[in-house]
Amino acid sequence: MTRTGELVFTDLYELTMAAGYVAADHTDDATFDLFVRSLPDRRHFLVAAGLASVLDHLESLHVTEAELAHLRRLDWVDDDFCDLLDGLRFTGEVRAVAEGEVVYPGEPILTVTAPRVEAQVVETRLLNLVASQTMIASKAARVAIACGDRRFVEFGSRRAHGADAAMQAARSAYLAGSAGTSLVSAGVAYGLPLAGTMAHSFVMSFDDESDAFRAFARRFPDGAVLLIDTYDTEEGARRAVQVADELAPEGVRIGGVRLDSGDLVRLSRSVRRILDDGGLAEATIFASGDLDEYRIAEIVAAGAPIDAFGVGTQLVTSADAPSLGAVYKLVADTSGSRIKLSEDKVTLPGPKQVWRVSDGDTDIYDVIALDGEELRGHLDGGARLEARPLLETVMSGGRRTRPDPTLAESRDRCAGAVWRLPDRLRSLHQRERPYEIQRSPDLTALVETLTAAHRSHGNRQDGENRR
Amino acid sequence: MTRTGELVFTDLYELTMAAGYVAADHTDDATFDLFVRSLPDRRHFLVAAGLASVLDHLESLHVTEAELAHLRRLDWVDDDFCDLLDGLRFTGEVRAVAEGEVVYPGEPILTVTAPRVEAQVVETRLLNLVASQTMIASKAARVAIACGDRRFVEFGSRRAHGADAAMQAARSAYLAGSAGTSLVSAGVAYGLPLAGTMAHSFVMSFDDESDAFRAFARRFPDGAVLLIDTYDTEEGARRAVQVADELAPEGVRIGGVRLDSGDLVRLSRSVRRILDDGGLAEATIFASGDLDEYRIAEIVAAGAPIDAFGVGTQLVTSADAPSLGAVYKLVADTSGSRIKLSEDKVTLPGPKQVWRVSDGDTDIYDVIALDGEELRGHLDGGARLEARPLLETVMSGGRRTRPDPTLAESRDRCAGAVWRLPDRLRSLHQRERPYEIQRSPDLTALVETLTAAHRSHGNRQDGENRR
Repeated sequence: MTRTGELVFTDLYELTMAAGYVAADHTDDATFDLFVRSLPDRRHFLVAAGLASVLDHLESLHVTEAELAHLRRLDWVDDDFCDLLDGLRFTGEVRAVAEGEVVYPGEPILTVTAPRVEAQVVETRLLNLVASQTMIASKAARVAIACGDRRFVEFGSRRAHGADAAMQAARSAYLAGSAGTSLVSAGVAYGLPLAGTMAHSFVMSFDDESDAFRAFARRFPDGAVLLIDTYDTEEGARRAVQVADELAPEGVRIGGVRLDSGDLVRLSRSVRRILDDGGLAEATIFASGDLDEYRIAEIVAAGAPIDAFGVGTQLVTSADAPSLGAVYKLVADTSGSRIKLSEDKVTLPGPKQVWRVSDGDTDIYDVIALDGEELRGHLDGGARLEARPLLETVMSGGRRTRPDPTLAESRDRCAGAVWRLPDRLRSLHQRERPYEIQRSPDLTALVETLTAAHRSHGNRQDGENRR
Repeated sequence: MTRTGELVFTDLYELTMAAGYVAADHTDDATFDLFVRSLPDRRHFLVAAGLASVLDHLESLHVTEAELAHLRRLDWVDDDFCDLLDGLRFTGEVRAVAEGEVVYPGEPILTVTAPRVEAQVVETRLLNLVASQTMIASKAARVAIACGDRRFVEFGSRRAHGADAAMQAARSAYLAGSAGTSLVSAGVAYGLPLAGTMAHSFVMSFDDESDAFRAFARRFPDGAVLLIDTYDTEEGARRAVQVADELAPEGVRIGGVRLDSGDLVRLSRSVRRILDDGGLAEATIFASGDLDEYRIAEIVAAGAPIDAFGVGTQLVTSADAPSLGAVYKLVADTSGSRIKLSEDKVTLPGPKQVWRVSDGDTDIYDVIALDGEELRGHLDGGARLEARPLLETVMSGGRRTRPDPTLAESRDRCAGAVWRLPDRLRSLHQRERPYEIQRSPDLTALVETLTAAHRSHGNRQDGENRR
């Protein structure tokens, strides 16, 4: 795709608003929360992802000469505004939940505090990055739950919405439990384990299926995986056994077979028998074909002898919930905390902290509090409960405050967070009782004060809540 | 996102197959068709998109030193294979349907003929590019149909799956009828018209909604569009009128208002009255808020006085069909035509041409034929019918054979193709009688011969069909 500078990946209204702020001298610091309003159907939690790419974006925010030249053609873009864009860098602070952490609706995944123009113009890209990656990680966590102790590999690049989507999906899926990806560029960029063997076109390129198996096994003598469903799956399994026998004297070993169509439960059983009877008890069975967490859970429940799953389209597009309702809302500026009250969409005001309360083994509830608020007395479960804050400062003055965690560390964090979920939240299906999200006393009081002030003063925000 | 060379945006199995082909000396020319197997629910046609990016990819296919270094760590990657990858460029031929053209399932959107390794390794990226862009263009064409003579603007960047997805969505939506995009980088890269005004955060940044309107209108005196639903939509409309009156002496003109929530039919009527009564009869009403073709069709049917729509999430994720079942299948090589017969997925063999048969005003049916086949006598409707071929050679020897059409030309082509659709195919809802796709006599005969040969020889492909 055409390359652009980072700054212009933004909605035009971010720039028109920037011009409006400057003209009105509204260039004080502002704080925005990025959060998801509600869970998609059948989801009970989200897995935060995308922070590393957000920080990359903010550290490299700039506009190129060519982009400026293009923008100059807009009639409202004058020299002053061009100068502003030309010099614009991100100099603010970011507080964020770590990648791999479980998060819930209404909780800030990240919070940006910066001069208003800077904080505003990054909205589009921050939402784009966090929402799409969190969506995939959240889907992948469900696939991992369905798989139990079996492995799965992401291989949906061809159905992802462009290159970034495929790269992000491979990374986000790994973060949330995949064993690797088929996408070579993601392996190169992120160090992910790579998986893949052959397609039907390889088998079809030979006059005979057995010839295709021989050629492939000789080239990959240390455990080739053969795709056996191009013509007839069970016949393909018998040919794999024959080829294994035939090539064993050459030191060639067959590692496994792949099924990509048909009744995977029935076929995996008959193929397992054929392999076992043919002396290939060690060969694994890999299954693919429009799988998702629901189908995998059925297959696992049926006890099908499948060792690993390939999950593509349904995972990389999060097909049953292909977007997350993530938003980026003004919550405070130098004149106080801000609240938005249109219809039933209330935004919680003020800079916040999210506390996760655990009994040591299991996370029990979260408390959304004001940043700096003391939570004494709020942990009503007594001494056995412990609370830890989720939002940490990760950027200050426009620079990372520390190196990113490694992807392996974030993956471990995710596994731990999913492990600590209340059991009911690991359900793939029913709407169980949701995780409990409390509001702290100070946040509750602030919402009440601002709402009352708003109602009594028309739309005027109350200056009493200056911070 | 991390930048990679073009070649490694591929599934690992494309590389393992390439190694297998080389080891087995299977490096003759092969022809692959890229096509969509079936239409998503409620879709009656597709709009081809993505060809320009496909040709870019093929012309720049290469691997970087860093990527080679990474690949070397895989135990099966030896010096010979590294040399092969290092020297790999695309040198083949591409025949394709033009961007903006209507296509149907089973019809090749593009066909690649190249040395087998080259043709194979580009599979992943070609599917990724064509499927995602065709998906969006097809969705956008439906939105355009729903809008009728009203305009719509794409502004879903924040919900797209990464940067490429957003850029592609903006371009594909414009190709199929949007009036423009909110995404500045897409405006810069593709010359798309840009649209956008202000967000709720702008309004909330001022103590009073009217102050926000004043500041914005003064900065954009030649037709600012004001977002009026931050607090109360009708009250917002009255304030817009007041501000227009107040600032008229300064030469400031209000261009319109935007509604982003609530009952758009009811609110647009009351807002229209307020604007008309306040002397703003020329001001337009722009509406947004989780719109798709179905909702827009309802709003239009209700006669709501809305001039233009903003369409975001539902469009850029193609939410009701977030992937297309596009595939890339071997159809011929130097030893003959190839067919795949697993389960109910039959791939039509041989290099092909698609003929579109029209009565001059309306397209009536398509004929999938073998390339070079004479269609005489097949146009049974008599002299009034005309047939035109859809697949044209666009790349030869790895280079474009001509400049790409401009985006404006492709957009016109799309408008014409949608215009020539049989009326029933413009339905958004019911599964109407599908468009008729015929197979030519020679193609039918080839399928029968190959199927019979396959059945009688086990999986052996029949050499009688060498071309």
